Amino acid sequence: MSETVLLSLEEARSLSLTVLQHNGFSPAHAEAITRSVVAAQRDECHSHGLYRLIGCVETARNGGMDTQALPLLHDQAPGVVRIDAQRGCSLLAFETGLPMLIDKARRQGLAAMAINRCFHFSALWPEVEAISSQGLIGIAMTPTHPFVAPAGGTRPLLGTNPLAFSWPRPGGTPYTFDFATSEVARGEIELHRRAGESIPSHWAMDAQGEPTTDPTAALSGAMRTFGGHKGSALSTMIELLAGPLIGDVLGHETAPANIEGTGKPLHGELVIALCPQAFLGSDADYHLRHADTLFDNILEQGARLPSQRRFEARERTRRYGMSLPKALVDELNTLTN
Amino acid sequence: MSETVLLSLEEARSLSLTVLQHNGFSPAHAEAITRSVVAAQRDECHSHGLYRLIGCVETARNGGMDTQALPLLHDQAPGVVRIDAQRGCSLLAFETGLPMLIDKARRQGLAAMAINRCFHFSALWPEVEAISSQGLIGIAMTPTHPFVAPAGGTRPLLGTNPLAFSWPRPGGTPYTFDFATSEVARGEIELHRRAGESIPSHWAMDAQGEPTTDPTAALSGAMRTFGGHKGSALSTMIELLAGPLIGDVLGHETAPANIEGTGKPLHGELVIALCPQAFLGSDADYHLRHADTLFDNILEQGARLPSQRRFEARERTRRYGMSLPKALVDELNTLTN
Repeated sequence: MSETVLLSLEEARSLSLTVLQHNGFSPAHAEAITRSVVAAQRDECHSHGLYRLIGCVETARNGGMDTQALPLLHDQAPGVVRIDAQRGCSLLAFETGLPMLIDKARRQGLAAMAINRCFHFSALWPEVEAISSQGLIGIAMTPTHPFVAPAGGTRPLLGTNPLAFSWPRPGGTPYTFDFATSEVARGEIELHRRAGESIPSHWAMDAQGEPTTDPTAALSGAMRTFGGHKGSALSTMIELLAGPLIGDVLGHETAPANIEGTGKPLHGELVIALCPQAFLGSDADYHLRHADTLFDNILEQGARLPSQRRFEARERTRRYGMSLPKALVDELNTLTN
Repeated sequence: MSETVLLSLEEARSLSLTVLQHNGFSPAHAEAITRSVVAAQRDECHSHGLYRLIGCVETARNGGMDTQALPLLHDQAPGVVRIDAQRGCSLLAFETGLPMLIDKARRQGLAAMAINRCFHFSALWPEVEAISSQGLIGIAMTPTHPFVAPAGGTRPLLGTNPLAFSWPRPGGTPYTFDFATSEVARGEIELHRRAGESIPSHWAMDAQGEPTTDPTAALSGAMRTFGGHKGSALSTMIELLAGPLIGDVLGHETAPANIEGTGKPLHGELVIALCPQAFLGSDADYHLRHADTLFDNILEQGARLPSQRRFEARERTRRYGMSLPKALVDELNTLTN
């Protein structure tokens, strides 16, 4: 069993801020990134937790990301906020635009925030939960690098294109989901490769477009969308809405950051907020409570709600702190030298 | 091979109008329903074509649907149109609200139309294509009767909850999809039952919650969502947005129309329109054309676009007319007596 270290929320926050500021991130960027990775760590989403700081620092050192970028806010239309992240991390852009998005959604009923030219490496659920925590419904989507073949195709074209949704529940934790539109996360295939294990043949295909159980062949081939042609259609919708609709690139036009600084993982993100009070006036509270009938019925037949494990982890962290692999904490500490 | 009859678009339109008006539908409802079923028949979507008139007339005769209902339009918020269908068919409500939805989306950037208390039996793609034909992006969703178990559950709770999307392509047919969030359409299981064929075990479960290959057991059990827990989450989102958000019922609160007239298949529908010009100003044309890169890349690797077969059928119909089973035309003619 590997050695672990117990950190309080405040200790995790402090470690993250130190790593980021030591690597040139402005205080505003360091705070925004820290809020996201500490929230993920708190909920035991390890892949989007403090571990992400390693890739974040690497991307900054490769010279792709502007660690001091000031997001430019533009009031595009009564229902549309646009923010140019100016080659900075998406998270500060999101936080900068959020108040205007919420205000517009409350006035108009629904509103959209288009984030352009951002580096995106975080989970989407902290963003949609920032919206549902204010009593609105949040939807977020973003394209990623082209790792996924469209249904019926044989070559990488679509991103793993995640979709997130959060619905506010008065007096309770929100109904939130956040999933990649690929059959599995790319990291899952990486983990199998490292462990020397084969993968199920429906996860991916090799470079010749044939189903493969070899994770190495899969990583140099193409992943599949979840749910066949339906997942493929949904993934395409995400590329279109978080790409051309907001004047940004398609997944296949992005590239991983590289040491030469020529890789440009920059792309867009679309966030939508809907306001129940604007749709329903004073009936909103009744209908929001009525939605609980659906959640109760799901639980009552033994099924789970999407973020249930995460909320249970959040409660554990609140009581006992967060347990991190010592190797990760050591590696993060080397990034402060 | 079964006998077929060739009808022109005009003949199909005339047959549909006659059936509907003879069965008490107001001219406005008859026109709106006819536009939808003839469009589906033109595109060789037989299940949503003239065949739907049989169920439509049956629902009206059962006394559930108000065939004369006047939809009530309400300008709810700068970005929200609400329409009370008043127990009438959804299609006239959609057409009544569409101009206000488009106008709001052009002004605000995006807008929503909430249709309440409607009977819904049509495909969603003609609606989202009515939006994309005006240069906007259309999204539509509606809950249906509870035939589907949530992932991890064993009993029917969710509707087959379809989602439709249409993206305008300058000078070409739009990128459109319209799919149920169940693994297959309920009609597909019905067809297997009639043909005495077994079904794949991942389509549905029996009344005890066990996987089944028996279509009869499946129809009295629960269907599965497509794509496991991701499809289940998407289906739940549709119930919430086209239910409580618009002040309407959840899937499990609807019931099929019955001869006693006590069944109430009434529910809501949510339609969203987004306007590229409002998001992008004069750059919109460039980015809409740029989106074609994605479609070209999908086709180039041998994959298909979701509505490709339908557009090919549309072209066939334009040239040669539409071929219908004689038995269907005969049955429709009996409904005019």
